[in-house]
Amino acid sequence: MLIGTGTDVHAYESGRECWVAGLRWDGVDGLAGHSDGDVAAHAMCDALLSAAGLGDLGANFGTGRPEWAGASGITLLRETARLVRAAGFEIGNVAVQIIGVAPKVGKRRAEAEAVLREAIGGIVRVSGTTTDGLGFTGRGEGLAATSVALIYPVQKEA
Amino acid sequence: MLIGTGTDVHAYESGRECWVAGLRWDGVDGLAGHSDGDVAAHAMCDALLSAAGLGDLGANFGTGRPEWAGASGITLLRETARLVRAAGFEIGNVAVQIIGVAPKVGKRRAEAEAVLREAIGGIVRVSGTTTDGLGFTGRGEGLAATSVALIYPVQKEA
Amino acid sequence: MLIGTGTDVHAYESGRECWVAGLRWDGVDGLAGHSDGDVAAHAMCDALLSAAGLGDLGANFGTGRPEWAGASGITLLRETARLVRAAGFEIGNVAVQIIGVAPKVGKRRAEAEAVLREAIGGIVRVSGTTTDGLGFTGRGEGLAATSVALIYPVQKEA
Repeated sequence: MLIGTGTDVHAYESGRECWVAGLRWDGVDGLAGHSDGDVAAHAMCDALLSAAGLGDLGANFGTGRPEWAGASGITLLRETARLVRAAGFEIGNVAVQIIGVAPKVGKRRAEAEAVLREAIGGIVRVSGTTTDGLGFTGRGEGLAATSVALIYPVQKEA
Repeated sequence: MLIGTGTDVHAYESGRECWVAGLRWDGVDGLAGHSDGDVAAHAMCDALLSAAGLGDLGANFGTGRPEWAGASGITLLRETARLVRAAGFEIGNVAVQIIGVAPKVGKRRAEAEAVLREAIGGIVRVSGTTTDGLGFTGRGEGLAATSVALIYPVQKEA
Repeated sequence: MLIGTGTDVHAYESGRECWVAGLRWDGVDGLAGHSDGDVAAHAMCDALLSAAGLGDLGANFGTGRPEWAGASGITLLRETARLVRAAGFEIGNVAVQIIGVAPKVGKRRAEAEAVLREAIGGIVRVSGTTTDGLGFTGRGEGLAATSVALIYPVQKEA
């Protein structure tokens, strides 16, 4: 088995739709970014790419790859899972923790896990926490997510 | 095997007892929170719950579950391990890193690992670091902990 | 298998050479610290020591061990891998994500992975991200790295 890790941060941007963990959250400020700012999906992409030795979001979907400009977090996650499998791996599971004051992911955890699981074709765990008023996540300036992934090499058929 | 991740942060609160990693630390400011503010135990709970697909501290021990109000970190950790096993898993190991200026966990690492290992009935690794004066952990405003857990499904007896 | 985690942070210090992920980065401010301030190598050391139950950088290479004062990150990583093997483990893989504005590790990822892999004698994954202008990493005050490691006990020959 191989392990990978990923972290992502986006600042809130008033007036944008909020997309986190593949879901739209009404009544919550959106997140700045080239795409939808979905920190959970982005952290999961980075964890999976890391485990598979495929670099990171910037290398695969950054400014050098304009065809991905504006892509949603779920779209990037689906493509990431495809790249991981094309590299000869299967996904064990991916866990992601969303860190900040909003949205409160616990209210829609099952829904988020279902959407993310469908995107990667593997087990996903979603959780949330706050930072007790400290740091940029505590002051509500931005939202962070941290993720770890386990993958394993697929035995080629003879 | 399944992987999970958890992070926790609490602000220091002068005049409270300091409980971190299941130990009381004399001469160190305590941590604010509904319970004892034990960031290490809380991050471990979140890592284990995440790995097992059981959500997070808020879902299991939050304001909707008043019977856990004021519970110590060790109590929450013991109950978390029970929930993980009840869901059909055994614990491989849990690693937790405590990030901040105080307490210095290295001085009592073996003691902390023994208390935490007893609580979860599995292997625990405790370590510590600082952030070079940067951020809320560097300025001594709060203490953070980050944890990862490996668990595995238990084969049911025939 | 056993899992470990490690995080490290160093402040930038103008006028020092910048060493990150075992490479020298020209045109980038260096990092403060007793050694070379290589946050990536340090986080990897902590993740490996954590997985093996050997404590952390402070316990193994801190002020109580003056023979390691000023050692490079790569030197510490090589010694860490030796300690992990001496404790009866083999290294599965180590993933490290470098968080901050500079250096841009993506440009030299293959080179960094090769140097780090040689140091530990095992698979290394290197990735990078930024924090959207937020926090000390976003403001360019310091550089952070977070790492996870998987190791496994070696079967002793009869």
